[in-house]
Amino acid sequence: LFVVLVNIGNHFDLKASVFQAPRRGIYSFSFHVVKVYNRQTIQVNLMQNDYPVISAFAGDQDVTREAASNGVLLMVEREDRVYLKLERGTLMGGWKYSTFSGFLVFPV
Amino acid sequence: LFVVLVNIGNHFDLKASVFQAPRRGIYSFSFHVVKVYNRQTIQVNLMQNDYPVISAFAGDQDVTREAASNGVLLMVEREDRVYLKLERGTLMGGWKYSTFSGFLVFPV
Amino acid sequence: LFVVLVNIGNHFDLKASVFQAPRRGIYSFSFHVVKVYNRQTIQVNLMQNDYPVISAFAGDQDVTREAASNGVLLMVEREDRVYLKLERGTLMGGWKYSTFSGFLVFPV
Repeated sequence: LFVVLVNIGNHFDLKASVFQAPRRGIYSFSFHVVKVYNRQTIQVNLMQNDYPVISAFAGDQDVTREAASNGVLLMVEREDRVYLKLERGTLMGGWKYSTFSGFLVFPV
Repeated sequence: LFVVLVNIGNHFDLKASVFQAPRRGIYSFSFHVVKVYNRQTIQVNLMQNDYPVISAFAGDQDVTREAASNGVLLMVEREDRVYLKLERGTLMGGWKYSTFSGFLVFPV
Repeated sequence: LFVVLVNIGNHFDLKASVFQAPRRGIYSFSFHVVKVYNRQTIQVNLMQNDYPVISAFAGDQDVTREAASNGVLLMVEREDRVYLKLERGTLMGGWKYSTFSGFLVFPV
């Protein structure tokens, strides 16, 4: 009935983070993608089947770490794929400290 | 039983975003309000019946986009209204990329 | 069955915010810790039984208020303690505007 995506701490791996819905329903997704100091702006998209649903940005040039965060409730069909995509910029330090979480709020 | 507010992508409309609770319970609300580059600090309040519950801020002068984010679990009475209010500053680019989400965690 | 941590507005008190799980399950936790203008970087850890699970940072020197935010789904055993720890920096203005929320998504 319920589905959980948990990516904790230093081992966030983008490739492993495609969520495929086992059933139709309303899901809650949220993410915090942390960039380490660099002179770029990042844009992170939450993707549903190759379509960008929401975006988040981190663009401060002067801080060591800054998160691009957002969250959404999403109507997801069975077998839809939901994942994060780094639309702009690079993550030089990798995905350290980043999280991506989703759970079924209720089936439809 | 459940209530969902979904505001996705570019079509966030503040006026349409007053949530009126159909039943008593604990709800989870979260928001990410994105300001586009300007020289102002914004303050966004989550309002419950004209009372500010939590606030979020975005004040960086030097970045293109920055989000004021917060979230809370809230005891909501039947017919309570919950909505976002821009308490300080202006959103020159409108509510693009902003999200406001809420769902019933459990009835009381 | 359900557990709620609500800390609203200006009265966030770190000491009172140790959550002790009444039952085993998957919980959703999220936090937004707001620092007031000062020349420090803060790091906030979400702790599970003295072990840091996720971190968040706020380091901008030039803004009045900035939040260190993150969230996670967590497998929690009965009687586990979950709380926030200010790992680095100080909160000169206290925990004003900060929130820490958690709820049981489903029992395991």
